[in-house]
Amino acid sequence: MTSLTGDGIPFEKPEFERRISLVKQEMERRGIDTLLISEPSNVYYLTGYEGWSFYVFQMLVVHRDLDEPIWVGRMMDVTSARRMTYLSEDSLQPYTDDYVQSAEREPVDFLVMRLKELCPTLNAIGVEMGAYYYSAHTHARLVAALPQAQFVNAELLINWIRIRKSAAEIAIMREAGKISDAIIGDAVAAARPGMRECDLAAVVYQRMIAGTPEHGGVYTTSPPFLCVGERSAEPHAPWSDRTIGNDIPVNLETSGCRRRYHSPISRTIFLGTPSDSYRHLADAVVEGIETALAEVRPGVTCADVERAWQTTIARHGLHKEARLGYAIGIGFPPTWGERTASLRSSDMTVLEPGMAFHMMPGLWLGDVGVTITQSFVVTETGREDLTSYPRELVVKP
Amino acid sequence: MTSLTGDGIPFEKPEFERRISLVKQEMERRGIDTLLISEPSNVYYLTGYEGWSFYVFQMLVVHRDLDEPIWVGRMMDVTSARRMTYLSEDSLQPYTDDYVQSAEREPVDFLVMRLKELCPTLNAIGVEMGAYYYSAHTHARLVAALPQAQFVNAELLINWIRIRKSAAEIAIMREAGKISDAIIGDAVAAARPGMRECDLAAVVYQRMIAGTPEHGGVYTTSPPFLCVGERSAEPHAPWSDRTIGNDIPVNLETSGCRRRYHSPISRTIFLGTPSDSYRHLADAVVEGIETALAEVRPGVTCADVERAWQTTIARHGLHKEARLGYAIGIGFPPTWGERTASLRSSDMTVLEPGMAFHMMPGLWLGDVGVTITQSFVVTETGREDLTSYPRELVVKP
Repeated sequence: MTSLTGDGIPFEKPEFERRISLVKQEMERRGIDTLLISEPSNVYYLTGYEGWSFYVFQMLVVHRDLDEPIWVGRMMDVTSARRMTYLSEDSLQPYTDDYVQSAEREPVDFLVMRLKELCPTLNAIGVEMGAYYYSAHTHARLVAALPQAQFVNAELLINWIRIRKSAAEIAIMREAGKISDAIIGDAVAAARPGMRECDLAAVVYQRMIAGTPEHGGVYTTSPPFLCVGERSAEPHAPWSDRTIGNDIPVNLETSGCRRRYHSPISRTIFLGTPSDSYRHLADAVVEGIETALAEVRPGVTCADVERAWQTTIARHGLHKEARLGYAIGIGFPPTWGERTASLRSSDMTVLEPGMAFHMMPGLWLGDVGVTITQSFVVTETGREDLTSYPRELVVKP
Repeated sequence: MTSLTGDGIPFEKPEFERRISLVKQEMERRGIDTLLISEPSNVYYLTGYEGWSFYVFQMLVVHRDLDEPIWVGRMMDVTSARRMTYLSEDSLQPYTDDYVQSAEREPVDFLVMRLKELCPTLNAIGVEMGAYYYSAHTHARLVAALPQAQFVNAELLINWIRIRKSAAEIAIMREAGKISDAIIGDAVAAARPGMRECDLAAVVYQRMIAGTPEHGGVYTTSPPFLCVGERSAEPHAPWSDRTIGNDIPVNLETSGCRRRYHSPISRTIFLGTPSDSYRHLADAVVEGIETALAEVRPGVTCADVERAWQTTIARHGLHKEARLGYAIGIGFPPTWGERTASLRSSDMTVLEPGMAFHMMPGLWLGDVGVTITQSFVVTETGREDLTSYPRELVVKP
């Protein structure tokens, strides 16, 4: 398996077969004969299909008794499906363009027609009820068109299988991590008071997409979050045209992406001279993340890891309300979060080799914050970091 | 109104009041007392809120009897909502982080609680059934929690109001168009055989985000579509690490974005010497788009405009199956399409001043294609082009 070209089918056939086998086992366990998959990450996981076509209707169908999944999508995207996936021609079921955003025809009706033709049974249909691209409309229409079938919520069924990464996946995540390191390096070199925020964001994008000489980049699920000065209290606001001031922190959260796999990273770049209290805050973040990372190994829970962080920062009189991190891997917009385990006090998920997380501690003092994060994968004995940029406050005097 | 900083509230208060008044009129006409808005573009249209937070649960509530909409979103994003919108503190209703991607708590239940507290009536609730971020799960949970209420599909209710742009909106779309022109200029200058596809994509992103000296850019809804050589038959495939060959077309579809408004553009850059048949194809596209654009004025239908295109290319023995274009304006991922009118034979929408479209003709001969597009707004007497890059095949010998 090579991901060198960043093109074509991303994994060997046995890797896909193993994945489908795991999905079918879980379907069997839940009594599902037909699984409808709308989440682009899950479609990609089972087939390799990665077109930016999820803004129109598409669905992957896994049936208990069929060897291959069935791809249902737009006619103009079937050439991509043919090249990107191992699926045979019979498993590619495109609908014509007069179905697209039309008042007259509904692609979901096309899906129903194909389901009836191609699936040996339609008894218990698993659907991803809370997935981003499974709309209330699609669900209502399916239920009305298939009154004999029982509908079962299978949201996150595949995500929880995805949580354990194979060696091939981890190899790709390392490539993504190298791009993440390069982005931070470029941003640190470029950031200076007086430049427009958008010009710093452009530096980030340039490296994110160009990648490294060995591994080109591709679009990520989300824009970089570039929180400058007082806007560091706004984690999801876009940058602006304003010029960057002096003696302020610039919080940058971003990720390299490689074959849809993300290894995110955040760093704070302080322009000027931080105050003593701000430096103290940064020291607490560093101490907290080091302690929490040291806790990571198979057998401990997500809650254990989070507790190590909270205990450490509590000694500094600090507390963080939001979760400490989340599982990562394949991502399509709008998020690179896998939506499985979270590093939080209520999450009893036991860490296993191959699970990958973005630990993202951040602390705020009034309006200014520090964020220093680490993406890692759990190994047999502990963890492997997916990025290597030093875990410290970056100060540019 | 100035959008110079690309920051803060994007429109004056009367503009928002006019929009809300139009929405309430339409609610009245349909008998809806409570409108739940999940589509980020529609939330932005009514409030100015533009955080990248739609990957978690959020909803805007417009009630017939309440002056202001109510924003329901994540606690960590309320600071953004406070800065970006005109909403008063009572209209900001954030939920805490233990609701986020949690097995224990559901933000939709938080919404239900607030609806019961804050809305004078909950008789007929309008919801966006097919919107990207209105999941089947959310709908099922709402219906179960509010059994007395009637649920009405109000998908696209606001989109169809958005279709007529104000002068303030058109001014922003002109800024976006200037960025689009600059992107194509940079891409044409940089494209050469032997460079990696990802490095050309990085040039596009750099300009998209840096924008122009007058107007900084911001992330678009979609990545640039960079379809190189044989991949020009795959409109939505990502670029790769491969080097670009010689004597091939590079089809680039992209957009500048300004305050979430897009003015997209596509051009084909031919590297090397095109064949006579390929030049003929390009000539047909140019003749077709000029004829169709000349048709644009208030009173004609979308179908009329498309017919002018089809008639022209038919004289060259050509036909295009996909629609010729779509309405544009505000966009959040995954698409900058407004999802209202399309330039296609079945769309009888009558053009009015303020409507904006991306006309995107493309023609294919076997595996290679030509695409030359134009974003425009309908004026009192005809149209105004939102980009000014020449409508012709770009050849770099």
